[in-house]
Amino acid sequence: MRLQPVAIDVRLFRRLIVSGDGAEVTRVASALSNGDLAEILLELAPAELSRLEQHLGVERIADAVAELDPSEAARLLVRVSRAEAADILEEMEPDDATDVVEELGEEAERILAEMEVTEASEIRDLLTYPSATAGGRMTPRFVSIRPDLTVGAAMRLLRAQAPDAETIYYIYVTDHEDHLVGVVSLRQLVVADPQQRIEALLRPDVIRVPAEIDQEDVARLLMDHDLLALPVVDEEERLLGVITADDVADVLQEEATEDIERLGGSQPLGEPYLQASPFLLFRKRIVWLLFLFLGALQTSTILQAFSDELSSFVALSFFIPLLVSTGGNAGSQVVTTVIRAMAVGEVRFRDVWVVLRRELLVGLLVGGVMGLATLLRAQTMHVDAHVAITAGLAATAIVVWATAVAALLPIGLRRLRLDPAVMSAPLIATLVDGTGLLIYLLIAKNVLGL
Amino acid sequence: MRLQPVAIDVRLFRRLIVSGDGAEVTRVASALSNGDLAEILLELAPAELSRLEQHLGVERIADAVAELDPSEAARLLVRVSRAEAADILEEMEPDDATDVVEELGEEAERILAEMEVTEASEIRDLLTYPSATAGGRMTPRFVSIRPDLTVGAAMRLLRAQAPDAETIYYIYVTDHEDHLVGVVSLRQLVVADPQQRIEALLRPDVIRVPAEIDQEDVARLLMDHDLLALPVVDEEERLLGVITADDVADVLQEEATEDIERLGGSQPLGEPYLQASPFLLFRKRIVWLLFLFLGALQTSTILQAFSDELSSFVALSFFIPLLVSTGGNAGSQVVTTVIRAMAVGEVRFRDVWVVLRRELLVGLLVGGVMGLATLLRAQTMHVDAHVAITAGLAATAIVVWATAVAALLPIGLRRLRLDPAVMSAPLIATLVDGTGLLIYLLIAKNVLGL
Repeated sequence: MRLQPVAIDVRLFRRLIVSGDGAEVTRVASALSNGDLAEILLELAPAELSRLEQHLGVERIADAVAELDPSEAARLLVRVSRAEAADILEEMEPDDATDVVEELGEEAERILAEMEVTEASEIRDLLTYPSATAGGRMTPRFVSIRPDLTVGAAMRLLRAQAPDAETIYYIYVTDHEDHLVGVVSLRQLVVADPQQRIEALLRPDVIRVPAEIDQEDVARLLMDHDLLALPVVDEEERLLGVITADDVADVLQEEATEDIERLGGSQPLGEPYLQASPFLLFRKRIVWLLFLFLGALQTSTILQAFSDELSSFVALSFFIPLLVSTGGNAGSQVVTTVIRAMAVGEVRFRDVWVVLRRELLVGLLVGGVMGLATLLRAQTMHVDAHVAITAGLAATAIVVWATAVAALLPIGLRRLRLDPAVMSAPLIATLVDGTGLLIYLLIAKNVLGL
Repeated sequence: MRLQPVAIDVRLFRRLIVSGDGAEVTRVASALSNGDLAEILLELAPAELSRLEQHLGVERIADAVAELDPSEAARLLVRVSRAEAADILEEMEPDDATDVVEELGEEAERILAEMEVTEASEIRDLLTYPSATAGGRMTPRFVSIRPDLTVGAAMRLLRAQAPDAETIYYIYVTDHEDHLVGVVSLRQLVVADPQQRIEALLRPDVIRVPAEIDQEDVARLLMDHDLLALPVVDEEERLLGVITADDVADVLQEEATEDIERLGGSQPLGEPYLQASPFLLFRKRIVWLLFLFLGALQTSTILQAFSDELSSFVALSFFIPLLVSTGGNAGSQVVTTVIRAMAVGEVRFRDVWVVLRRELLVGLLVGGVMGLATLLRAQTMHVDAHVAITAGLAATAIVVWATAVAALLPIGLRRLRLDPAVMSAPLIATLVDGTGLLIYLLIAKNVLGL
């Protein structure tokens, strides 16, 4: 049962490639997934790559390269000869190949010039669409038929086109000017009478997307309708290409990564972690850190304003980090849950009162427990009883306050048509830190009679 | 161009259902995605539901119900008659229906008793597998053929079985004892000579999974190999069922939600946010909050130990929340990025030194800028110059320290075979809070000559 990624000794494999036992190389490679093979490709010298390609065939190499991140794939292709790079790109699906060509920089034109004219022009066409849109994700290799064909004739056409098409499971029906008029599935064709006409079978209400639409919307649409593919059309409803379901998982993964990076309080990297240069990491992080720092300045202002109280009761300062971090943690729990629920469509603006009511209830429960815990802790430190009561009351109040802010802000931002994902856990923590301290010190003023 | 979810006035739609213009109801409903229709179903009264089912047919209703979360679907089914509920479950894919039956509680047996024997026993079989495993996700409605058939005979068989099978795009080949011996794609069959035998076409090295394997592993396997379906087998390699690609997007979404909830510092809810009771939210959150609170206690201990210094220089306490939150934010940025990179397989244990080196470099850059910002801030507050220098130096040191801890801990946990996702942003912040304060106060002792 082959399930775990096959552990393979890369050094041994390299020796095998060079020693030239083609059958053995093929046997070992056939046990590897394309993703695993791709990782090995990255470690090979150009000469070893050429040998491996002779053993496995350029199709297998192309399938593996397609699994790499486009920037990694580009780095691989510039290490082999232009003719070899061109061969690999020709064998890749045009949408995947285009992503790689975009990363090739100056080499792009020279490698495209080595390619077959048809394949190169497919890529040139796709290069005109931004990569995170439907146009950038689509393949121009789809099967389309006319509505007046019979099922038998359509099947014969399909047989001829199948080797080149990325998917033959949905067949799009177009008129003589390429306007999309419907869709039939291969499943329908297999079951139907060969004499029947396509126009009698086709579903005319096919869901379609314009080329400019964001890839995330495409992914959600495919997922919501459980489709294997979506057709992409121009302004005049002419069929331009097809987006297949295997791209959707990649898109969802990318988008979840962006959400997670934002929730962690930095700007999304936009490329795989290990590909990102340290300077890119620095830039993506420092922006938010400085912004949060500006927000956190209020804490020092507030503490300075209360310096008399802090001098009289130095024990008050013992609880500052404890209260600040408890408030921040409670806010972080709420904001991540609410933002995720909004991202997957579970919570909408009309749910604002439901969310607020339940969060306030939970906040009171959580706040009550945390207030008690803080009080107990203060007792064990033998601080003044009034300071202990102050800290306990403040813990409860701060948790409730943090919960309310963390629940309301993301929904409010969505209402203002801003992206709620800018609302990160650190941002909530920062917003709550200053006001939390104010709550603490105002309670202190009253309880301690300062 | 139909792209945005169709806005539909539910009250108007209900009146339409009751007024009984079937053609109009069908027209409006055909413009709705199954997901949108499902949301409307939740708002209908039982009588309205029955009427709508008469208009649209039970298949369409079943398709819509399949889009609901299983607990919501169950709540819908107990509101209609048992016979109607049984009809809807019969029309659903058995894997989806099983998820709903699991949520039906006491009603489950009574509704199963109303169902056709075949469909009910499919569900009873699937109920024996935990729902988050391959067995719980698979459908028993697959197409399998014997290797000695011709392509023509296989196509005839397919035509007969197609209406019932969940997918006919992969056809699994089994021997007379149901052992999985290979796979052919519908695409291959369409292209092949009808006289050819299946055994000459089949790929014997078909990737398969055991029924007990976790659904996340299944999703990654399907995705890595760009497959439309995966066969599930028992210990003797007998074919039990098939998992189709449309389940994968759901699984990946669920798993990303769990990761995000953990990163936010609470235990995963395991159900949609609005379904979770406030008490469940409380339980999932309080565990981590109390644990983090225990960790944060070190801060009060450390501050108490340095109370003489804090009394002499009360200005020192002004910067405590600023330093603590900057350290926490820097740690949060790093830990979310590293954990996500590990979750999608970009970073492995062997990368530990690469990660540490680049994070230390980035940490020094970020720490330098934050140190400068803190120093400037202290100047504007007109505090003692030594306190200002102390705060600036501490900011740099704390950022570097937080970065190192946040980069190393997740990888270290993975090494210890623990789930790195328990390493949340709040946990890193808590770990760094105490040590950060210690760094600050030790620098203070030296700079201020205390």
